[in-house]
Formats: sequence, structure tokens, C-alpha cells
Amino acid sequence: MEFRVGCELSYRLQQPTPFLFNVEVAQTAIQTIGHEALTLTAGLPRETWMQPESNNRYLRVMAPAGAFTLRYEATVSLTPTLDDPASVAEVPAGELPFDVYPHLYPSRYCQADRLTPFAQRTFGALPPGYARVNGICNWIHDHVDYQAGSSDAQSSAMDTILQRAGVCRDFSHLAITLCRAMGIPARYVSAYAWRLDPPDFHAVFEAWLQGPAGGAWYVFDATRKAAPDGLIRIGVGRDAAEVAFASPFGAFEAEKPKVWIEAVGNTGALITTAAVRVAR
Amino acid sequence: MEFRVGCELSYRLQQPTPFLFNVEVAQTAIQTIGHEALTLTAGLPRETWMQPESNNRYLRVMAPAGAFTLRYEATVSLTPTLDDPASVAEVPAGELPFDVYPHLYPSRYCQADRLTPFAQRTFGALPPGYARVNGICNWIHDHVDYQAGSSDAQSSAMDTILQRAGVCRDFSHLAITLCRAMGIPARYVSAYAWRLDPPDFHAVFEAWLQGPAGGAWYVFDATRKAAPDGLIRIGVGRDAAEVAFASPFGAFEAEKPKVWIEAVGNTGALITTAAVRVAR
Amino acid sequence: MEFRVGCELSYRLQQPTPFLFNVEVAQTAIQTIGHEALTLTAGLPRETWMQPESNNRYLRVMAPAGAFTLRYEATVSLTPTLDDPASVAEVPAGELPFDVYPHLYPSRYCQADRLTPFAQRTFGALPPGYARVNGICNWIHDHVDYQAGSSDAQSSAMDTILQRAGVCRDFSHLAITLCRAMGIPARYVSAYAWRLDPPDFHAVFEAWLQGPAGGAWYVFDATRKAAPDGLIRIGVGRDAAEVAFASPFGAFEAEKPKVWIEAVGNTGALITTAAVRVAR
Amino acid sequence: MEFRVGCELSYRLQQPTPFLFNVEVAQTAIQTIGHEALTLTAGLPRETWMQPESNNRYLRVMAPAGAFTLRYEATVSLTPTLDDPASVAEVPAGELPFDVYPHLYPSRYCQADRLTPFAQRTFGALPPGYARVNGICNWIHDHVDYQAGSSDAQSSAMDTILQRAGVCRDFSHLAITLCRAMGIPARYVSAYAWRLDPPDFHAVFEAWLQGPAGGAWYVFDATRKAAPDGLIRIGVGRDAAEVAFASPFGAFEAEKPKVWIEAVGNTGALITTAAVRVAR
Repeated sequence: MEFRVGCELSYRLQQPTPFLFNVEVAQTAIQTIGHEALTLTAGLPRETWMQPESNNRYLRVMAPAGAFTLRYEATVSLTPTLDDPASVAEVPAGELPFDVYPHLYPSRYCQADRLTPFAQRTFGALPPGYARVNGICNWIHDHVDYQAGSSDAQSSAMDTILQRAGVCRDFSHLAITLCRAMGIPARYVSAYAWRLDPPDFHAVFEAWLQGPAGGAWYVFDATRKAAPDGLIRIGVGRDAAEVAFASPFGAFEAEKPKVWIEAVGNTGALITTAAVRVAR
Repeated sequence: MEFRVGCELSYRLQQPTPFLFNVEVAQTAIQTIGHEALTLTAGLPRETWMQPESNNRYLRVMAPAGAFTLRYEATVSLTPTLDDPASVAEVPAGELPFDVYPHLYPSRYCQADRLTPFAQRTFGALPPGYARVNGICNWIHDHVDYQAGSSDAQSSAMDTILQRAGVCRDFSHLAITLCRAMGIPARYVSAYAWRLDPPDFHAVFEAWLQGPAGGAWYVFDATRKAAPDGLIRIGVGRDAAEVAFASPFGAFEAEKPKVWIEAVGNTGALITTAAVRVAR
Repeated sequence: MEFRVGCELSYRLQQPTPFLFNVEVAQTAIQTIGHEALTLTAGLPRETWMQPESNNRYLRVMAPAGAFTLRYEATVSLTPTLDDPASVAEVPAGELPFDVYPHLYPSRYCQADRLTPFAQRTFGALPPGYARVNGICNWIHDHVDYQAGSSDAQSSAMDTILQRAGVCRDFSHLAITLCRAMGIPARYVSAYAWRLDPPDFHAVFEAWLQGPAGGAWYVFDATRKAAPDGLIRIGVGRDAAEVAFASPFGAFEAEKPKVWIEAVGNTGALITTAAVRVAR
Repeated sequence: MEFRVGCELSYRLQQPTPFLFNVEVAQTAIQTIGHEALTLTAGLPRETWMQPESNNRYLRVMAPAGAFTLRYEATVSLTPTLDDPASVAEVPAGELPFDVYPHLYPSRYCQADRLTPFAQRTFGALPPGYARVNGICNWIHDHVDYQAGSSDAQSSAMDTILQRAGVCRDFSHLAITLCRAMGIPARYVSAYAWRLDPPDFHAVFEAWLQGPAGGAWYVFDATRKAAPDGLIRIGVGRDAAEVAFASPFGAFEAEKPKVWIEAVGNTGALITTAAVRVAR
């Protein structure tokens, strides 16, 4: 399926300020980028880098004082594999690929070591595999309110499980934490998300499971606000600390980001109950 | 019903050290003390004080260097009123007695302000009154493991709800916190507890509810390890910070406390499903 | 010295809502109230209570739906005793009055048990007594920014010592915590504060020390924004949890409180370097 | 300079248990491995992996029920570059190599986002560069006690700064956190540490600074218990969550690890005041 995605980020700066951006769509086995354009105010020079272990694409700019705008647009062909959830199992810890282990460890906003007793008690009896991760999403959906303004940049999974309110970032952190606490590798994903309303950068997560074609990352949206097979990955990381769409190194004023995504051509009935396999 | 209770606390001190003790049975409307004796090594002088707002009895001693032992024993007649749980309601916040309000506030180990969203979500649909407090105890019983050594003196309700393990102190703190978060005044109680096995100082809690004879404190044991109508109150307070059985102001070595309680005469079938009213 | 103090609190309510207020000046050994008036919209009935252990004066009103205003004014004669700081010592823990012990314990926003190692390291070498409490205030003044909006109702001393920013509530909580961690009883005080700019309810604290006339509470303003001998006490408590100026039990909209204090007649040179003794 | 290093890890297992080990010396620009041997009980099969972004070497074994021992030994030639501290500067955030950014982010045990106000206040006036990182180590040395048993596997930098006590893991976490809070990339290092007494796995840290030959990682030992130019790197990571020497996935009993390091041949006067550059 084809999508047109993009964003426009505008800032006002008192002095020249370096920015690190992560807004470009990742090139993955299921994401093929067609046309793509990124424009900066005044044609500023840029540095780019793709992180090998994540495929995240970073862009660095020394923004000048005054008004500054980044505009990005791309067409993306998305071809996730839809597996039967019943066929998607967990991978024993001793059999994980070595490069997946870091996604078992606790991280800044996902203190899995603190929530292990809770997770074991709450999700220990669920059938392992896709059903367990889905059960974690169900639990979060039932026990946490999606509430704009209820959290801030320092909120972590421990706060969310007490506060019982958060936004997409918090829902993903909590889900990741509970997966790791159950021995399931999980990582944070920033995305353009089809049918998210209002449109914005979205946060979802991926869990490493064993499907019919072997171990793979499967994507989940703990907020259930977007179609799981309409998620265009921007970046992956241990948690939100690693996948900010913009990191300004200095003082700034920002406008609210404009973010868009639209399906091109036939859109079908995308919301799915299949397991959505997205990588390797 | 009659009980013989007591304790023996032994210390070894390098230098003279002041101690504050709270081991003597409180005199209350339902507790009548018969014979009582408190002996100290070498007949040390003592100071005593009863805190007016709690009826807690404090004893202060300047213990000398060397071995030091306090021994306390008492006979107590306990006459709690047993109400029908269905007759015990909550009191609207605007109608509480003024001196009950402090037991609505968050305290060191009972951060009710942090657990309000969780409590409202989890216990908001329960029938108010005795049933709700009992439901909180049931929830704790089902979701927290009683496990010696799983907590320490700094553990609070926030830790327990994440860790899902604790001892009587932690069970009481969590229950108190959840009650206060639901608008139900609750306070910490240290007690001699009949049928607690092994015998030890026990921690339970009281909630302020509206019974057939008006507003009153009702006692609950969130651990369910002792008979709720076999609890002899020593001290009450906002939380464990206020009701230590011994506070030594200096370095010390202690033996494990000896604590005992036995029923005198007819013991009946004491474990009860009634609401146990203990004070005004 | 004479002061005219007062406040006006205005609310808008969707439905009848009970309120508990603590805005009236406390009657103490050094505060004598002259004229006093408290008026409520529409002459609502009121209940009042003075808490015996604190002398705090509480007022309860069932406010009706619609607009609701409380207005309080009083003239107060303030006669603190000014002691020579060099004459004000600490009291050994074994010699404190029994009713002072609760102010040694950790409380919700003053986790003295967590900050003891820090306090001992930082203030252990200071001369004991008034100088040590003053040293704690100096340290806070040097290491914490007074910054409106930097904290919220859940901020505690542990947050403030990490965040290094707060308002009068946070400054007092941190000072109280550090005093208790050093074995010095300390309590939270809400006050009308002369020369505070802009005028508002202020938070200061009292420490129990040994002056020329025996043990007494001495007042300190860790923010240094008001004159320590121009502080009119409203309430005292373990921390802010116990001394809110208004506790509405239900939803409400509030206007910003109006608070005032002015000196009557000769004002002298009030800012002082003496130890200000305020109560037994 | 030449070292002989090694360790012996012994376990007793109830059932077959997978283990992930990270005990082998990393091959780096300044570490050349000579002879090396790793032996496992009963010649078990092993899987190995070197993480590309860190050069960490991982070993995975399915250990059988019963007694199980891993023994590792190696000879290592260590050739750190010693720079003049005065020549080692900080790198502006906008000029860091892209692959260094992850070491600016907060992590599980290094909540740099929480300690930024403290760090800015405390270290903001220090001269930037090597001197500032050294100043952070000095501060930790002066304000935190090295105390075995004072922390556990869940202790983080926020705990250590309040508790003011810890072990090498905690010292490194706090130093890393404070560096990141000052905008200096820093990462956790597990090491064989010459002259550490008693010998054990050690934790130190590296900061990214600008030396005479460009940007590079410089190593620091916040505990000052080992010679900074006698540190043989095993693993690097965001914090201890990523660099455990052994991760058993199941229940186990372990003996205390045996760890050794000795210098071969001329040992010189190794303890140094130079800046020790260790990588790229």
C-alpha cells in the first residue's frame, strides 16, 4: 500500500543553534521510499547519517538565528507481512539473536527491573507469544487513560503505571517495560501513523517474536489509535530518549509540528487483527 | 474476651543511649487493662507520656552501656463491637469529624496523592463503605505476596504496589494509601495479634466509617494473618514512622524481640466476618 | 508590633461543595488577635474547630453552587522574643518534650530518612544549634533557585534537592527535611508574611531549639523573602499536606487568592539577625 | 605494558540454563590480546558474537544442570596514549560524531535529565574539558562514600546522589550522569583493573573529549581505586544494564567470582595524572 507522508517543523532562534533531526522514513524490508524531499530554510548545509544498528536516519543542521523551517515529504510503499497471531510464539532467552539482547534490558523510561513482579503476576498466565503481547496492550488499554497533558518529558513507565494516564509515548514505554519484564525483547518506534486523529508523530512499539518465517519484529500500537498496518517507521530505539524527532542543542521557540499521512489509491480495509511483521 | 500479652526487648549498648518505647497496650473504649507490669534492667528511672490525640503510651529510658532489657506484660479485656458489614457506610468528606481529617492526608509511607488515579480506577466501582475497604484488602491479598525480607524501613506504598511483595507493615501502608485515595480516612495500628504465627508485633489499620452507632474506627488486617477481633492495639499513627515499638537514639545491637499473646479462658470461634468497631 | 492582615478567596462551583479552610491567625503566646472578621457569601453557616495539638483554626463551610467568597481580616499584635543566636543550642534527642517527637519523623514531603546521609555529610561539621539551622537555610539559599512554576503539589524535598528549584513550600520542605535528618525537630508553618512581595500565603518553618529560656520553637524563612519577625502564623503541621489554606472536596474554579499584610504605626527596622522565638 | 588477566566463574544449576557472558577482553586500538583461553566445564559448545557498535565480545552457553565453571585467561598489551589534561577540551554538541550521541541520552541508571539542574549549578563554573570531568570525579570522591553493600542492582544515580554511598558501579553511574547532564557524552566500562584491591570486576567510565589528536574516549575511575592507565576494557555500554559479566536466564547459585590481573615485566610508575586516551 502507498502513502504520502511528511512534516513541517518551524522554529525561531535567538542565536545559531545546532539541531539533530530524525524525521525521515527508515528504509526497511517492508518500507520502500519513492519520491522524497527535505528542504531547509535558505538551503542550509546538512549532514546526514544512518545508524547501522537501527537504520535510523539522522540529519544535522546548524540553524541560524531567526526563523527556521524544515519540510519533509516522501511517498512510501508499505508491505508488512500479516501472520496468523496463533502462529507467533515467544523466543526463549537463550535463543535470541545476539543483537536483540539490548532490547531486553531496562532503559531510562522503561524500568523493566522494577516492574517484573507486577508483570509476572499479571501476565504470567497468559498464553505466550503474540497473545501475551496483545494481552499487555489490552491491559494497558483497560487500565490507563489516554489523556493529553497528563505526562511530561520525564514521565516513565513507573509513573504511568501509578498515574494511570499518559499519551502515546507513555503507552509505548509501559508496554515495552512489561514485555521486557516478561522476557520479551521490545523497542520503541516513532512513526507516521495512518488514520491517527489528529495527525501527529506517533509512538508505537515492536516486540521480537517467532513467526512462521522465524524470529522477527512485530509492531503493536498500545494506544489503538492508528491502524497497525498503516505505520511508517521513522526511528527505533531503547525508548523515547533515543528517538526524538528533533533535538535542538540550545534555546528555541517552536511552532506546533505539522505532520501528515495519506493513503494513495486503493485503501482497502486496513485495520487488521493479524500479527504485523515488520522486520528481519 | 481476655488476653495475656507481652514482650521482651534486649539490647547491647556501647554507651548510654536514650530509648523511646511504644509497647504498652492502649487504654481504649474496647480495651481494658487488668494487671500490667513493665520492668527494666536494674530498675532504671523512666518517663512516661500518653499522647492526647492518639492515646499512645510512650516510655523513655536512658539505657546505660552494657546489656539492657525491657519486659512488659499485661492482661487485657477486649470487647469490640461486631457490626453487620452491610450496615457500615462511608462518611462524606464534608461531614467528617475535624480530628479525623489528618488521616485523609498523604504521609511518608502512604503517598495517597500519587495513587489516586489507580485507586479510583480499581475501587471506584465497588460498593462504598465496609465493602470497599474490604475490597481493597482483598485486592492486596490477591496482588501482593507476603514475603519476609522483601522490603525495608524505607519501603513505601509506592514501592509495594510496584514490587508486589512486602510484610505486614507494607500491607497496611498500601491499604491505608488506597483508602485515603478513595476519600476514606485510614490510620496505621501496631498491635499484639492473636493467632499471628509466628508471634511478633503486628501492623494492621483502621478506617473511619459510619456504622449503626455513628462514625467510628473499624479495624482491618490486610495480611489476614490474625483474627480481626483478637487485635490488641498498642499505637496508632499516620503510618509506621509514628508508631515504632522502639526508637533508640544511638548505636545498638538488638536481639530479636520476643512477643506473646494468649487467650485466657473460653476462646470461642473468634475469626469473624463482622465489621469490627474499635473506637469512637 | 501591630499588623493588619487578611485574605479574600473566591470560587465558582458547579454544585454544592464542602470546603475546609485554614486562614485564620493562630492565637499563640506571641500573637494576640485584636479585631477579627470572617465573612462568607450569603451568610452561610459555618463550623469551626481548633486542633488542640497545633492551635490551628479550621473552618468548614458547605459552599453552594455558583459564586462563593470568603473574606478574612484581622489585626494582630506580634511580640516575638529575639534571642542571641549564640545562646540557642540543640536539644539531645533523649531530652525532647514528648509532644515534639512527631516533628522528628519523616513525612510525605519531607523524607528525612532518605536524606540523612546527605545531611550528615553536609551539615555535620557545622556548630550545633541556631547556627546549624541557619547554615541549612544558607545552603538552600545558595543551591536552590526560587522559581515560580518549577514545582507542583506532588513535589517533595527529594525532588527539590535534585531539581534545585522550587517555591516557598519547597524551600520549607527541604529545610525541615534536613533539620530532621540532623536530629532537629522541625515543622511547616503557613503564614501571613510582612514585606513578602508580591503578597501571598507564605511557607516558613520552625525548629525546636534550646534558648536562654528553655526549649522553644524558633521560626526561619528559608526563602529569605520576608522578615522573620514579621511572620504571622496561620497553621503548623508536619508538612504542607496538613496546612492547606483551602481544601475543597469536589470540583471548583478559583480566582487567584488576594492576601495582604501591613504594619500599623511604627515599623522600626524589623529585619533581624536575632533568633526569633515564637512559642513555648 | 603487559598484563595477565583472567577470571573463574562457578555456578550450580538445578536445570539446564542459558548464560550470556561478557568477560573477554575487548580488542581495541590500545588493547592487543596475545595468548587467550576460555574453557568451559565438559567442553560445552559455545556461541560468540562481537557487537559492532561497541566491540564487546559476548559468549553464550547452554549450561547443563549441576556444577558449571567458566575460566578465562589472556595476556594483553595495553598502550594508552597519555595526553596533557590541559590540552583536552569539550566538543560542542553540534559537532559530535553521530555515533556518539547515544551516550548523551539518559539511561536506566543514569537519569541525566533529572540531574541537569544540580549538575549545571555544581559544575557549570569549572573549566570545560578534561578538568570538568576530573572535577566531577573529585566531587564524587568528596561527597560519596565507597561502601560495600550500600547499594543493589536497582540503585541508580538518583539514589546514589541522595544516599551518598555506593560501590564502583554506582560511582560510575553518577559520574556518567553528571557528564551527560553537562553535555559531555559518557559511557560505562567494565574492566580488569590493575592494583584494584581486592581484585574484582571493576566499573569505570569513558568521556568523549577533544584531545590533541581529535575527538576520543578518555577513561576515568571515579572511585580512584585503580590506576587509570592499568584498566583493561571488557565491555562498554550506556550503563550497567548493558554490560553484565554474566547474565543467567534462570535460577542459579553462584560462587564469588575469582578475578585476577597482574603486570608482566617492568611495571613502571603507572599511576598517572595524564589524560588517558583509550579509543578512536
